[in-house]
Amino acid sequence: MIRVGIVGGTGYTGVELLRLLAAHADAEVVLITSRAEAGRRVDDLFPNLRGHYDLAFVEPEVDALADCDVVFFATPHNVAMHMVPQLMERETRVIDLSADYRIRDPLLWSQWYGEPHASPQFLDAAVYGLPEVNRARIADAKLIACPGCYPTSVQLGLVPLLEEGLVDSQRLIASSASGVSGAGRQAKVDNLVSEASDSFKAYGVAGHRHLPEIEQGLSDVAAQPVQLTFVPHLLPMIRGIHSTLFAQLQAPAGDIQALFERRYAQEPFVDVLPAGTYPQTRTVRGANRCQIAVTLPQQRNTVVVTATIDNLVKGASGQAIQNMNIMFGLPEVAGLNQVGLLP
Amino acid sequence: MIRVGIVGGTGYTGVELLRLLAAHADAEVVLITSRAEAGRRVDDLFPNLRGHYDLAFVEPEVDALADCDVVFFATPHNVAMHMVPQLMERETRVIDLSADYRIRDPLLWSQWYGEPHASPQFLDAAVYGLPEVNRARIADAKLIACPGCYPTSVQLGLVPLLEEGLVDSQRLIASSASGVSGAGRQAKVDNLVSEASDSFKAYGVAGHRHLPEIEQGLSDVAAQPVQLTFVPHLLPMIRGIHSTLFAQLQAPAGDIQALFERRYAQEPFVDVLPAGTYPQTRTVRGANRCQIAVTLPQQRNTVVVTATIDNLVKGASGQAIQNMNIMFGLPEVAGLNQVGLLP
Amino acid sequence: MIRVGIVGGTGYTGVELLRLLAAHADAEVVLITSRAEAGRRVDDLFPNLRGHYDLAFVEPEVDALADCDVVFFATPHNVAMHMVPQLMERETRVIDLSADYRIRDPLLWSQWYGEPHASPQFLDAAVYGLPEVNRARIADAKLIACPGCYPTSVQLGLVPLLEEGLVDSQRLIASSASGVSGAGRQAKVDNLVSEASDSFKAYGVAGHRHLPEIEQGLSDVAAQPVQLTFVPHLLPMIRGIHSTLFAQLQAPAGDIQALFERRYAQEPFVDVLPAGTYPQTRTVRGANRCQIAVTLPQQRNTVVVTATIDNLVKGASGQAIQNMNIMFGLPEVAGLNQVGLLP
Amino acid sequence: MIRVGIVGGTGYTGVELLRLLAAHADAEVVLITSRAEAGRRVDDLFPNLRGHYDLAFVEPEVDALADCDVVFFATPHNVAMHMVPQLMERETRVIDLSADYRIRDPLLWSQWYGEPHASPQFLDAAVYGLPEVNRARIADAKLIACPGCYPTSVQLGLVPLLEEGLVDSQRLIASSASGVSGAGRQAKVDNLVSEASDSFKAYGVAGHRHLPEIEQGLSDVAAQPVQLTFVPHLLPMIRGIHSTLFAQLQAPAGDIQALFERRYAQEPFVDVLPAGTYPQTRTVRGANRCQIAVTLPQQRNTVVVTATIDNLVKGASGQAIQNMNIMFGLPEVAGLNQVGLLP
Repeated sequence: MIRVGIVGGTGYTGVELLRLLAAHADAEVVLITSRAEAGRRVDDLFPNLRGHYDLAFVEPEVDALADCDVVFFATPHNVAMHMVPQLMERETRVIDLSADYRIRDPLLWSQWYGEPHASPQFLDAAVYGLPEVNRARIADAKLIACPGCYPTSVQLGLVPLLEEGLVDSQRLIASSASGVSGAGRQAKVDNLVSEASDSFKAYGVAGHRHLPEIEQGLSDVAAQPVQLTFVPHLLPMIRGIHSTLFAQLQAPAGDIQALFERRYAQEPFVDVLPAGTYPQTRTVRGANRCQIAVTLPQQRNTVVVTATIDNLVKGASGQAIQNMNIMFGLPEVAGLNQVGLLP
Repeated sequence: MIRVGIVGGTGYTGVELLRLLAAHADAEVVLITSRAEAGRRVDDLFPNLRGHYDLAFVEPEVDALADCDVVFFATPHNVAMHMVPQLMERETRVIDLSADYRIRDPLLWSQWYGEPHASPQFLDAAVYGLPEVNRARIADAKLIACPGCYPTSVQLGLVPLLEEGLVDSQRLIASSASGVSGAGRQAKVDNLVSEASDSFKAYGVAGHRHLPEIEQGLSDVAAQPVQLTFVPHLLPMIRGIHSTLFAQLQAPAGDIQALFERRYAQEPFVDVLPAGTYPQTRTVRGANRCQIAVTLPQQRNTVVVTATIDNLVKGASGQAIQNMNIMFGLPEVAGLNQVGLLP
Repeated sequence: MIRVGIVGGTGYTGVELLRLLAAHADAEVVLITSRAEAGRRVDDLFPNLRGHYDLAFVEPEVDALADCDVVFFATPHNVAMHMVPQLMERETRVIDLSADYRIRDPLLWSQWYGEPHASPQFLDAAVYGLPEVNRARIADAKLIACPGCYPTSVQLGLVPLLEEGLVDSQRLIASSASGVSGAGRQAKVDNLVSEASDSFKAYGVAGHRHLPEIEQGLSDVAAQPVQLTFVPHLLPMIRGIHSTLFAQLQAPAGDIQALFERRYAQEPFVDVLPAGTYPQTRTVRGANRCQIAVTLPQQRNTVVVTATIDNLVKGASGQAIQNMNIMFGLPEVAGLNQVGLLP
Repeated sequence: MIRVGIVGGTGYTGVELLRLLAAHADAEVVLITSRAEAGRRVDDLFPNLRGHYDLAFVEPEVDALADCDVVFFATPHNVAMHMVPQLMERETRVIDLSADYRIRDPLLWSQWYGEPHASPQFLDAAVYGLPEVNRARIADAKLIACPGCYPTSVQLGLVPLLEEGLVDSQRLIASSASGVSGAGRQAKVDNLVSEASDSFKAYGVAGHRHLPEIEQGLSDVAAQPVQLTFVPHLLPMIRGIHSTLFAQLQAPAGDIQALFERRYAQEPFVDVLPAGTYPQTRTVRGANRCQIAVTLPQQRNTVVVTATIDNLVKGASGQAIQNMNIMFGLPEVAGLNQVGLLP
């Protein structure tokens, strides 16, 4: 039984880790921290967990965390990078759901996150936890940087095209949309029901923090620097990310449907839909899955890929557990076979 | 392994049975019928099931159904009552999620459903599948009439008060609200997003078909005829029922919080919340659970009970599986320990 | 041209006053205050107002406000009661949308609002601004206490029954539901999209601040103290209140449909629906209107009234303008004939 | 007073015409047709109209329609093209909100709409009713083809760039999203609350009927054939279209913010937002307005334009009335100055 600790358990990725791990036969949450809610029962804050956990939040203490087999950071950025060095020293494995170790270049990180990185010495050792690209390295990792939610959907949608060199890597476009849970559980006016539940908007058009992360990941795959125009949007719903990706063919396309099916044939959590059907966020709601479709409209030169995930599952907590399974030699699907909640 | 057949698999209770049974270690769906979609793969209609089922819809045939250990009817009313006699003859157990066998009096049934009952000879044998009241009889039943969604929430909320004779059984009031999935998957203008997704209304105020069902169940418990004013409402969301129940005390209340906690202490799927907290539909979303709170506002004479369920789970498919577990001697919670999807 | 000042213009009742007054031929907003946003253009905060107003928020200053013909307080409670004395001294008329002057008994007010009233000397002079009951007094008022949103819908629904003495005034029940905009524009976790946009719950069951206000108003009409059990609920949508009201007949009902139609025949903003149809929140969205239906289910003794308003219009800013029209001798419907936004 | 007839008044563009025309001082709806609802009062079907109209639906009869000053077709495609010839003969002006006369080439129309055009002889005379491009021709038109909802937002967003020849006209991309009301009031499973209210998806990726319309309009402006990749999406809400447009600079951009502001400076219904702010669908809800922002992310070569409209107003009924105003020499803003309903 893997003994799991969770730092920052009061946010949505925290409660989602708890929901998913409740169904995991080989892992047990033994510790969950929150400075703000220390002492409060977890199921008092999240009544959906009543009967499933007998835990209360505690203050984060390195000793107790180091005693776990693995520690998940379900925190905003700027937390993990301060605690990870101590845990690495104690040889406790860490799966960081935040952005702290996603970007290898500390200067680039600083530029987008507005402060120096607190533990740049671990950036090289951190493995970017996108199993469909990095599975082998994940198995041996001590420190996993889980991909962001948008980056997961964008990369899984573009990787097959870039690996084959089929498209112009300098003119990639991602028009993505996320449910509001992606913004976290902080009290902000912009995310109130009355502000965001009956509207749609782009935001961060001039520059979003997920841009350098996506470009780094795609550049690795393309083996050359790529340029992406990334426009995120806010959807009037809770869960789900949908990415609509546009790429310019620079070689004859061949059978791109077959290409995608072949690329992901062995992937348990990437599902290429039959030609002519398109993914919806609701068909992956609550499930650790990415559904993808690829189209060449009007048989012209612009390939369109649409990809959906649940931002809290394949975009965060589910993918984190997928990484844990790989790290600990478990079947990759352990605890992650939930069927999407439809309707 | 219990071999399960499902009649009418294209509606929401059908796909929900499939979702839940995918996680049930002791049951396997071997057959699913639909006249309209015969030949179509189940996961083509419901892409959330891709990878979980390798089934196509078939025409309903008694022989094939009779070969199952249990048949669920996930149909509108007026279907099961025509097929059940043949299945009873073949000694196939039936769990009917529709209204056909819920009301024992065939005349009363006819009055509310607008046609004669097609197999009234089975009304007496049918057991009303509310485990918290009828567990013993369910274990031996050949034919289960699963409670309606509203009736489940209203009865679980009022049973403790009526069993103790604490309240006036002639002036009960239920103000209930349901998500739109309760109206099924039929194409109706009233249930379009543009009609119902940003509005709230009462309907069926003059008389709703769940009224006689609830009054029958409560009268059994009260051991006298009860009178209920039942007003259902349509919520601008998909899943969830919330019932707000009002009853007039006719005896000193004593500690009604303790009464509710005691009544449901051994029930795995009824959760009495701590005093001062109130159930939400979202904390039971996707879970086979009823959460209940009881209050005596201003210490006056009107008791208020609020109760929530997911109408498709504890209000339909989950409760149906709970009945199956009891009928087949399995642990009652088998396959039903999903955590509610929050947020 | 009536010169209007608005105190507290950054909340939802503030922006709604601006929306409605933009269409009012005889009133002009000359001043709008906000401590937090002083200096910011109104249409920067609320881009729907671009092109309609050329105003910036200013600090609240009594002199400037006193220079207006009428000042609306679109503030939380506990603001108006500190500023009104100075405005009354300057003979500036005030229409307070907050709760400060709604309850005549200062001790009762203190008990529910948790602090002493700051200007109890004006409680008697304040006129409760429910035109359908108090029209004559409103015309002469210097200070209007606009009814709360729930209280408007509950009172309009019960007044005809209580005026005629038809129902038991000691066992009234209101099961009401409100869109989230009723909770204001403050950043609170409970009102985030991810918390409240796909759920339904009761709250404040043990006691809500609108209870004493409603009981006071209904007692005036019934000419005796009434007792109400009031349970508010939070709807997963932005605008709209729906009240479902239950009353026990204590006299033969007669034709209650005709009673309601007669009572409101001359009211421009109360619309009694034809028998057998029920109001929806969406048919009054954005309109200054209360739609009402009355039913006697199963011809028993419990009358059910359902009533809908837009909480920001007839439940707040629209009603405030209706009061202004009466106070200034304008046609009561001036600027208030917007058609509800459907779909 | 302009005497208005409406053909097909039971859909959403029909009720929206009624809502808007109720506030129009110079126009009066004298006739509204529906085969299915003939004889039924308009305000019985749409209770938001109670008190605003005293009309019932009638069968469509050419004589009665010809007696109007102008007839709006608020019908699906394939209706107007059969009736318009008779109305043209009688010199009744027609504003067609459907697609029948939007595409000048009858073969292209047939290819996308799957049937021959019934009155191709009027295609040349029909004026495409996008006032911001065609104002002069609209003034003299007998027959207006109102733009589709997506096409309005896409064209208004790209016109300034194409007029200046700034961008590559062969690689234009539009990622658009619409509320469900765009799909009309027909009973379709796909548009039920339970299917579409908590999800997001692309559809029609391989080819949507608005593509040839947009390409025709943009080609006119660019004075050369353009190629657009157009991907529409379905939003989980009722009203609103948001288009995210991508274009590749082929010349130095200069000050594109100033370009957009200059282009639309005199347009009453196109609002270019300040740099750094982005339009939301909610800020144009219910208003005849297009809000636009333009950005050059990372100072690279891809221009991003975001544009929002209410699909039922500037995308349909409001724009139709704007056309009417121009045709009849009224101020273009007559009856169209509603403030967007926010929140």
